[in-house]
Amino acid sequence: MDLTNPPPTDLWQQTATQILPLLLTSQITVETYAKSLLSRINTRNPQIKAWIHLDETQILARARELDALPPSQRGPLHGLAIGIKDIILTADMPTQYNSPIHYTTSASGIDAPVVRALRASGALILGKTSTTEFAATTKGNVNQNFTRNAHAADRTPGGSSSGSAAAVADFQVPVAFGTQTGGSVVRPASFNGIWGVKWTWGAVSTMGVGMYSVTNDTLGVLGRCAEDLELVSRVLRVQADDVADSKEVNIEGARIAFCRTHVWGEKAGEGLRRVWGRARALLEAGRARVEELELPEEFANMSKWHAAVQSGEARNSFLGVYLADKERLDASLCAHVENATNVSRKALLEAYDGCARPRPVWDRIASEYDAVLTPGVPDEAPLGLDWTGDAAFNTMWSILHAPTVNVPGLKGKNGMPVGLTVVGARYTDMRTLNAARHIGKIFESQTS
Amino acid sequence: MDLTNPPPTDLWQQTATQILPLLLTSQITVETYAKSLLSRINTRNPQIKAWIHLDETQILARARELDALPPSQRGPLHGLAIGIKDIILTADMPTQYNSPIHYTTSASGIDAPVVRALRASGALILGKTSTTEFAATTKGNVNQNFTRNAHAADRTPGGSSSGSAAAVADFQVPVAFGTQTGGSVVRPASFNGIWGVKWTWGAVSTMGVGMYSVTNDTLGVLGRCAEDLELVSRVLRVQADDVADSKEVNIEGARIAFCRTHVWGEKAGEGLRRVWGRARALLEAGRARVEELELPEEFANMSKWHAAVQSGEARNSFLGVYLADKERLDASLCAHVENATNVSRKALLEAYDGCARPRPVWDRIASEYDAVLTPGVPDEAPLGLDWTGDAAFNTMWSILHAPTVNVPGLKGKNGMPVGLTVVGARYTDMRTLNAARHIGKIFESQTS
Repeated sequence: MDLTNPPPTDLWQQTATQILPLLLTSQITVETYAKSLLSRINTRNPQIKAWIHLDETQILARARELDALPPSQRGPLHGLAIGIKDIILTADMPTQYNSPIHYTTSASGIDAPVVRALRASGALILGKTSTTEFAATTKGNVNQNFTRNAHAADRTPGGSSSGSAAAVADFQVPVAFGTQTGGSVVRPASFNGIWGVKWTWGAVSTMGVGMYSVTNDTLGVLGRCAEDLELVSRVLRVQADDVADSKEVNIEGARIAFCRTHVWGEKAGEGLRRVWGRARALLEAGRARVEELELPEEFANMSKWHAAVQSGEARNSFLGVYLADKERLDASLCAHVENATNVSRKALLEAYDGCARPRPVWDRIASEYDAVLTPGVPDEAPLGLDWTGDAAFNTMWSILHAPTVNVPGLKGKNGMPVGLTVVGARYTDMRTLNAARHIGKIFESQTS
Repeated sequence: MDLTNPPPTDLWQQTATQILPLLLTSQITVETYAKSLLSRINTRNPQIKAWIHLDETQILARARELDALPPSQRGPLHGLAIGIKDIILTADMPTQYNSPIHYTTSASGIDAPVVRALRASGALILGKTSTTEFAATTKGNVNQNFTRNAHAADRTPGGSSSGSAAAVADFQVPVAFGTQTGGSVVRPASFNGIWGVKWTWGAVSTMGVGMYSVTNDTLGVLGRCAEDLELVSRVLRVQADDVADSKEVNIEGARIAFCRTHVWGEKAGEGLRRVWGRARALLEAGRARVEELELPEEFANMSKWHAAVQSGEARNSFLGVYLADKERLDASLCAHVENATNVSRKALLEAYDGCARPRPVWDRIASEYDAVLTPGVPDEAPLGLDWTGDAAFNTMWSILHAPTVNVPGLKGKNGMPVGLTVVGARYTDMRTLNAARHIGKIFESQTS
């Protein structure tokens, strides 16, 4: 490829890490880059349906503004196109939460702090990506879009960060933001065969982000390589304070735990069992020291506690829309407000206190390994678009506030992606990403 | 007072509990009521400076809309005027966070869920009340307003819910919403001699509310009687699930703990010492069984942990505005992002885990008493408007996630109010309010 005058038709294929040096040095204009992505989107999105708001005129105007910036004023993400899940406020685009209560063509004038940080770093906010209602149901994107899996139009892309995952996997944008309360970053990343990190709880501000369960709600980013997630994480200062954070993990000799968790027996499907064995074989072939990790007894309660906290907090989160407009609110969200599952305040408090105890225990366990691998999904993406799939393998890590990274590369029996999760101690996001990158290279090298 | 044709000049004096039956039954129109409040505001606010946004035309138009509702469609707060702290999103009014970065005359079109719930219940959102920058400094309301204490123009109203407290105390509005991260509801309530409740963390959704420290940020409401706080709390469904919640507390024979906390020795001023003794004497005269309560040793760490969590989370909360516009961000908030106090991620995690352990311990202790009284402020409101005062007696309860109620009625040596706090176990907000109401009646009856 001639980088001084590259064929625009190829630009949409670039990862963030590949395109950024070209944008920063004006070898490619942001406008040219944006037009390339738009051509891909115009060709593919009618099938994929990843976007809820995408305004070509707005995008190109912003691209030209970025092009007009002298190099000294360009930020570390200069011109990089980023998709934003449609439960995150954007000043110049509507935010609709896939809820009829919030349908609008008006922009709020407000950027969530994370969007403000991205813009301040030079990013080109491309548009808003589809989600499930309030990112809080597993019903596909029933109201606004039936977003498709990028690898199979008849399969779910997962949820609730459906559009972000599908758009990235389909090369319509290099990176996109998601959120996770149960498994809403890791699951769609896994089903679409891309990278995704859910950061340590609290590491990136969730102000201006739709709230479902404040104890679990966390931001994350999806991309097509680990380096892109590392890049965005650095810009958002997710790094820990210690130097070990930036040390490269060497798979040869690395101590890698395989942690099935208590969920395995009930949930592990054929696809997961297949990639689990394959991953172990590949890492052992790469001379990693692989061990099975069994978690202490109390961790078996985490799924139950997560469910109680999620319901108990959703009861409060959705009271406003419920009182204002319950006829237009999904029945499952009304049920939260009405406390249909009968989670008492007492049970909520027991769940809070219960899941607080294992958090430091998990941090200590994780610190004994170079990486911990754990399942991300029970199997390949389910057939159909009505159900976004099962978060059973994700909820424990969400409420432990641990960073989780979906590592793609391995596949189930139908050739659909089945990701595995690398999970770290709280605030070791960069180290966890680094380990995941090296593990991902092993997966890719053996399967391509 | 002739209720069928009351003198409009008196309506602004009414509490919510007094005015609501008149509004609900059309004995008074919402428009007449609003005009009465506006006359009070126009007379007094030039001195008090409690409001950041107040649009008479908008208020009266909305009042007439409410008047047009048939009785069957009227909500439980029909026509009740409510002030909203200016870090809470309101669809039809700008939200400015007292930050030059957010100065605007535009409304976002978005109601925070709590505002949506209030509107759905029939409330008349009157306007936006002043605060400190992002409700996260102790610098008075330096950018937009120097709000005055309702009792003394040369004293701070407290912060960061400055305008809400001053407006309520000055009879400009019967109730107003605040938020608390350290002591931002209880402190201004105490300094202005009014009632204020900071609810159990998470009990009312903080979506659409400016985020400072997600582990501590909590909503609350200020009013001129306990009944008004109980009313609003019921509408927002803050009640627990158990029936004990609604049982009336009888002061005669009630077991009431006086809890000085570990902060007392360093912080208790003359005003606090005076009301502390007076409260004890009054309750003993009312035949309560008063006991001193000494907290377990580990509670002495709560203030330190609160400071670490608040700084550590503020580091992430203000990254967006910092990257976009740090020249217009208060130096103390820049210092959070730059981690000037050197709170490592490790220290943040230790503080998270440290303060999680005493939460259920506190719940058990609190449940042994009919009420626990504790200091709310070190003394009367400080002279001057530059500093909103000390939250030293509040931060422990904030990070314990406990509901706290400021009980007014007692005074320091300059005749300025010094409130005491009734603090309960998590999710016993209604029981705590009930106990506080009865204690408040004892204070009032003896001092009036």
